[in-house]
Amino acid sequence: MTRLTTDASGVYVIAVTPFHPDGRIDMESCDRMVDFYLNAGATGLTVLGMMGEAPKLTIDESRDVVARILARVKGRVPVVVGVSAPGFAQIDTLTRMVMDLGAAGVMVAPPGSLRTDDQIVTYYEQVAEVLGDVPFVLQDFPLVTGVQIPPKVIARIFNDLPSCVCLKHEDWPGLEKITALRAEGMVNRRISILCGNGGLFLPEEMVRGADGAMTGFAYPEMMVSVVEHMAQGDTGRARDVFDAYLPLARFEQQPGLGLAIRKYTLVQRGIIAHDTLRRPGAALTPHMRAEVDGLVARQENRLKEID
Amino acid sequence: MTRLTTDASGVYVIAVTPFHPDGRIDMESCDRMVDFYLNAGATGLTVLGMMGEAPKLTIDESRDVVARILARVKGRVPVVVGVSAPGFAQIDTLTRMVMDLGAAGVMVAPPGSLRTDDQIVTYYEQVAEVLGDVPFVLQDFPLVTGVQIPPKVIARIFNDLPSCVCLKHEDWPGLEKITALRAEGMVNRRISILCGNGGLFLPEEMVRGADGAMTGFAYPEMMVSVVEHMAQGDTGRARDVFDAYLPLARFEQQPGLGLAIRKYTLVQRGIIAHDTLRRPGAALTPHMRAEVDGLVARQENRLKEID
Amino acid sequence: MTRLTTDASGVYVIAVTPFHPDGRIDMESCDRMVDFYLNAGATGLTVLGMMGEAPKLTIDESRDVVARILARVKGRVPVVVGVSAPGFAQIDTLTRMVMDLGAAGVMVAPPGSLRTDDQIVTYYEQVAEVLGDVPFVLQDFPLVTGVQIPPKVIARIFNDLPSCVCLKHEDWPGLEKITALRAEGMVNRRISILCGNGGLFLPEEMVRGADGAMTGFAYPEMMVSVVEHMAQGDTGRARDVFDAYLPLARFEQQPGLGLAIRKYTLVQRGIIAHDTLRRPGAALTPHMRAEVDGLVARQENRLKEID
Amino acid sequence: MTRLTTDASGVYVIAVTPFHPDGRIDMESCDRMVDFYLNAGATGLTVLGMMGEAPKLTIDESRDVVARILARVKGRVPVVVGVSAPGFAQIDTLTRMVMDLGAAGVMVAPPGSLRTDDQIVTYYEQVAEVLGDVPFVLQDFPLVTGVQIPPKVIARIFNDLPSCVCLKHEDWPGLEKITALRAEGMVNRRISILCGNGGLFLPEEMVRGADGAMTGFAYPEMMVSVVEHMAQGDTGRARDVFDAYLPLARFEQQPGLGLAIRKYTLVQRGIIAHDTLRRPGAALTPHMRAEVDGLVARQENRLKEID
Repeated sequence: MTRLTTDASGVYVIAVTPFHPDGRIDMESCDRMVDFYLNAGATGLTVLGMMGEAPKLTIDESRDVVARILARVKGRVPVVVGVSAPGFAQIDTLTRMVMDLGAAGVMVAPPGSLRTDDQIVTYYEQVAEVLGDVPFVLQDFPLVTGVQIPPKVIARIFNDLPSCVCLKHEDWPGLEKITALRAEGMVNRRISILCGNGGLFLPEEMVRGADGAMTGFAYPEMMVSVVEHMAQGDTGRARDVFDAYLPLARFEQQPGLGLAIRKYTLVQRGIIAHDTLRRPGAALTPHMRAEVDGLVARQENRLKEID
Repeated sequence: MTRLTTDASGVYVIAVTPFHPDGRIDMESCDRMVDFYLNAGATGLTVLGMMGEAPKLTIDESRDVVARILARVKGRVPVVVGVSAPGFAQIDTLTRMVMDLGAAGVMVAPPGSLRTDDQIVTYYEQVAEVLGDVPFVLQDFPLVTGVQIPPKVIARIFNDLPSCVCLKHEDWPGLEKITALRAEGMVNRRISILCGNGGLFLPEEMVRGADGAMTGFAYPEMMVSVVEHMAQGDTGRARDVFDAYLPLARFEQQPGLGLAIRKYTLVQRGIIAHDTLRRPGAALTPHMRAEVDGLVARQENRLKEID
Repeated sequence: MTRLTTDASGVYVIAVTPFHPDGRIDMESCDRMVDFYLNAGATGLTVLGMMGEAPKLTIDESRDVVARILARVKGRVPVVVGVSAPGFAQIDTLTRMVMDLGAAGVMVAPPGSLRTDDQIVTYYEQVAEVLGDVPFVLQDFPLVTGVQIPPKVIARIFNDLPSCVCLKHEDWPGLEKITALRAEGMVNRRISILCGNGGLFLPEEMVRGADGAMTGFAYPEMMVSVVEHMAQGDTGRARDVFDAYLPLARFEQQPGLGLAIRKYTLVQRGIIAHDTLRRPGAALTPHMRAEVDGLVARQENRLKEID
Repeated sequence: MTRLTTDASGVYVIAVTPFHPDGRIDMESCDRMVDFYLNAGATGLTVLGMMGEAPKLTIDESRDVVARILARVKGRVPVVVGVSAPGFAQIDTLTRMVMDLGAAGVMVAPPGSLRTDDQIVTYYEQVAEVLGDVPFVLQDFPLVTGVQIPPKVIARIFNDLPSCVCLKHEDWPGLEKITALRAEGMVNRRISILCGNGGLFLPEEMVRGADGAMTGFAYPEMMVSVVEHMAQGDTGRARDVFDAYLPLARFEQQPGLGLAIRKYTLVQRGIIAHDTLRRPGAALTPHMRAEVDGLVARQENRLKEID
């Protein structure tokens, strides 16, 4: 069984959780979504992230979603599962469950109460102790968690904890943080750095030394293309592609509405059946849907121009 | 089976969750704790509150604790269960589970993301819809949740939602809030108001119209005595008792350390076996234990003086 | 003397405050900056905003900067001055001072302590009382202030306070908020809505009913062009221009670094002499400067393509 | 002229700022207040603190208040002035002004944006650079500032910056923090530690190694008595006095209302003429005034009992 390693690279798409209009999980859409992501070139999947509405699922539902997705992936790519929770007992239970099902690793964001350098390091030491040999991703997302982790604290965590293999870099945009972490003498081994923020800074992040993206724009093919062209040194082409998608990517990154826009777009693309969000969750107005449609139309035109 | 009603009064003790030193739940201590609280005069119990370390329990552990406590209480007093969770699916699951076990009602605190008046009202409308006919307590605790609910919004919630039967008043101290809620024309029916904050403002809260306390000082007999004497109009005696316990009550209300002090005190009193907190949770230093011991000794002397 | 009215429209550029490398205010750069903004088509200026490093100036420096800018503007466009402060005495003093110098109005953001609907309304009632007949802009910027003001509360403020003439709309992006405010029965008179957020959602904001922008991208000509083309109904051209500048506009909107990028760009364009920020304030690394240069070069190419 | 040193001890009373009912500063009350504090045994005064409504004063008013108080004190005790401000230019200006008037030192709280250890240290390095040789107090008040400073970071600041002479300890209650700071090898020189929090934990703070209090209970004689008896080793007497005042001290420490209660009490004691607070500021209801009166009456009785 494949385990997440420090070699993780490419695009780990943050999967949405599809629901029926009545709020039940839509398993058929899960299957189509997995196929779509892998066909688009995803090198991994991340499920039960913040954008996967994980906190709105019961533990049984979480298990069912992960099981269904893993069954569909069939080991073709590693699947990371978000297990952030207020207490270690919950993290432990969820981790055992998903690793037994075949997950490649888990992801843990810091609780919002952490402030000082030592509090953050201690928290991840305790996480690592609870997880045992399960590889994990450190999610660094200050805009949402409120926890600011300076590069040297991230380095301490990676230097101390071998099972911490990947940084989900979602500081905003934190380009200097990537550079700092990649500097000589900072982290004493190779680690994987995958970036979030809906891909809004992906070209610049790749230049600074990121290994790819771990985020969820409704056009994952953009991220795959940008990462590949950057890796091949074709910066100009990477930026052309990026710029073509940017007006929509920017629109999808609206706090509060982003996930609704993403799900609506995935419905329009025929991937998932409904754009239902569980409460509390915004529904798009017709006005907003028209905006998205307009942006997609312009995007298609622009893509033809640069083809 | 008894259900929580708007007549709730007296002292609903917020129960701790006792652990063995290795972190397992200590069921024998649960039993002794129930006996102790009821012997002290508790008119109800509240379990899985913030001070019950609820977020550190798995769903299975939550069920086991509630089942054990309900079995010991045997219907003698109503038992309220905290079911606050990030999503409605979790609230729903936990509520069904504990009501099936015999709980009298549940308690729900607002998620920290709520800001505007309408957001708060909408949230509780959705809570009530999810809970169906299960009676619930609105927990108003701005210091911890960050959500400020003005009296007129509390009144809107109670006026709109018949299943909302009790306010756990834990604004700090919010004496004017109690007065405002008890004013003519505010809430259009009788509601129960039970106060928190470790009992630190209990005499004044009773004067303003509270029905009692719902909090967890390690000497619940203080709260029982204050509530009873205030109800009988013997304010002087109530305040004498209150003042005698105040130095320790104040010490127990230290943010970050309060629960550790409470558990240590309960161990010293022979109620629970260990003062273990699950991580993250502070352990008391010998210095701090000596402080508590000293305060208890002075408290005993003072109680003799006023006896 | 011109006063800000509910007819404010177009682009009110948020002015930076230029400093010498030793931290003194650079008055010559102030002059060039004013000329540049007006030549670019600005219909107004806003000084001492958050991006004007207002909190880092002494009261005497604030007066000197405002006086210099007003002297250079010579009444050609209205100048709004940010006067947000922790107390009303400071707001009062600063307002009298800048109105005496010839400002057209002032702008006030809510203090971060406000939570409930009534607290927000009461605050602006007190602001209006302190300001007397001075017209003012309500700055709605929840990402920074932490204060969420729902449309109906904004409407209450505008309906109650005639001297509140303009909304600086900086909710993120809050397109639905503009639509709600423009709906029949909401605000009972015409008000000006100018949008912030670095112009990142300007085309969509104009469609929803905004009157223009009040923000500070280093290429104000983009905002002027977008606003004008949208006003003329040439949405396609407006979006072409917008998209051409978007990669840089996105880069400039990085929290923590945005102002440094803006000042660096203004130096590169020959407008201000130094990109100095007062402490605390980030300086750009060579890496970051190269990123900006690269984005500007691509932007110039793209602008030629669509010319 | 006297300067604040690391020998600071006893009780530095945080002075209120007395206002006339129309909001003007009441200078006559300032004089009586100074006399009262010094007669009560204050070893120092701290003005323009958070409880001095400093943010509600203009710079001119701040100067006038400080000048009046210094003139009345006439060098009998050191006077510390709060100079916390959003920018260094303001801190610099205010510091020069009050030091020229004869202040003994200044006090600086960290801005709420600071998070990581290094950010906090860097901030105080910049403060020290701006202040030059002016001695200053580090105000550590996480409940209000949101900034958590662990003991080793406080030690770094004191070890690096000789002009930082005193810690205003207001962590809640942070008894272990005092013990940690007094431990061998932590701070490499003697520093003064004066405690805040309205004196609510004063006996325990003295046991841990504090040098006294810097806070503002309306009965400063309590704090003077507790500090003196603790210093003489008469812990029992210190605690008797403390306990007698605790019911009122607790009541005065209500967030939001504390300052109104303090001012009301000072009016009742004949010290200041009016209990006016500048807006925004709560006025006491008759109900609340009666509560305070009742607590004072009981306090007087209890003081007679233990006399």
